[in-house]
Amino acid sequence: MPKLTLVAFSDDLDRAIAGFLIASRAAVEGWEVVMFFTFWGLAIVRDPKKRVKKEERNERMVASMLPRGADELTLSHMHMLGLGTSMVKKRMSAKKMLSVAEMMKEAKEFGVRFVACALPMEILGIRREELIDEIDEICSVGDYLREAKGADLNLFI
Amino acid sequence: MPKLTLVAFSDDLDRAIAGFLIASRAAVEGWEVVMFFTFWGLAIVRDPKKRVKKEERNERMVASMLPRGADELTLSHMHMLGLGTSMVKKRMSAKKMLSVAEMMKEAKEFGVRFVACALPMEILGIRREELIDEIDEICSVGDYLREAKGADLNLFI
Amino acid sequence: MPKLTLVAFSDDLDRAIAGFLIASRAAVEGWEVVMFFTFWGLAIVRDPKKRVKKEERNERMVASMLPRGADELTLSHMHMLGLGTSMVKKRMSAKKMLSVAEMMKEAKEFGVRFVACALPMEILGIRREELIDEIDEICSVGDYLREAKGADLNLFI
Repeated sequence: MPKLTLVAFSDDLDRAIAGFLIASRAAVEGWEVVMFFTFWGLAIVRDPKKRVKKEERNERMVASMLPRGADELTLSHMHMLGLGTSMVKKRMSAKKMLSVAEMMKEAKEFGVRFVACALPMEILGIRREELIDEIDEICSVGDYLREAKGADLNLFI
Repeated sequence: MPKLTLVAFSDDLDRAIAGFLIASRAAVEGWEVVMFFTFWGLAIVRDPKKRVKKEERNERMVASMLPRGADELTLSHMHMLGLGTSMVKKRMSAKKMLSVAEMMKEAKEFGVRFVACALPMEILGIRREELIDEIDEICSVGDYLREAKGADLNLFI
Repeated sequence: MPKLTLVAFSDDLDRAIAGFLIASRAAVEGWEVVMFFTFWGLAIVRDPKKRVKKEERNERMVASMLPRGADELTLSHMHMLGLGTSMVKKRMSAKKMLSVAEMMKEAKEFGVRFVACALPMEILGIRREELIDEIDEICSVGDYLREAKGADLNLFI
């Protein structure tokens, strides 16, 4: 069974789409797939319905500036105060494509494992309790290296 | 024969330069090399001389905002309304380096295979008819995975 | 002994942190690790104490716009005129984490090899004499390919 590890480092809508398209396709074709959400990519797996009270001011500010989940992601280019992002979303729905939040659910159904990285969670003040239920585990850098070592394809997106 | 797959995801001038430098060098040293142009990276392989009439308004707007080919790329940093980009281009020509459009032609001559990704073309409304002749084929995510699986080096730039 | 090559292409604080965390962890766990500093990533290994007189105007301007070493890096997102960057730095020091400049020193102590890429140094006008003493060598694209070919994990960050 071939294996793919995919580090989702970014909260750009376009990179999240690319990540889920690759992860889901690989899973469908029988690959073992692990996605590591780290740094800004942690924003993709925040659950907008889960609010955590944060005592520290810095933590609250970071939390308020990061997107709360897949539906709030914006394009890296051409965002244009929302116009570019909404154009691309419209094109995707006209083409009968899934939204990125739906792609994420689909990837999970296809058997992709979702892992969140512990140290960047500490740095950005993002807690386990505010992540989506689909997160399978929290990992260390050492865990990532062990997964990546035997894999056929390692992407950092 | 070692093999390299390189995903050109970005339309930043600096990342395009890095991509072509690596791809060409690998080809010269006897590697099999496949470059996958996807998302913003599709802008690199648009042919400025090929204009396609687009009916849909969204499609026209996206098309007008993306660079039309390698010569229109700009730096990810220090673009500074064009000043930074032109400084770097001047330095490259003073050092007798090729322009990025010429690097692309050279990569092709060295035997690098150029592939454009179908789904992002759909999303951004970029058509086969507006891409450069050097594109060898249009591929699916599954095709990419098959190429990457046996490769010695897989880069996502 | 497993092997990791890591291309540090970016001068974003967040990507530099990710790179050093992965490189150091791998080295601690017994991997052979080589970091390639290239393009904007060269800024990470500039030594703020070493000033080189540059004759050419373009070269001086590029030099003045790039960060001078790890302590001057800023976030790719949420920089917000320095506020976001300083918030994240504060959080890291509150968590007793090292600064990125200290992480770099630590990586070196753990045995990570530091390599700077020749061609991007030419393009950006960055000279060997202004890089930190910890740089082990200057390399070509061909050298990179030879290192990456046999590696278990190749990251481009």
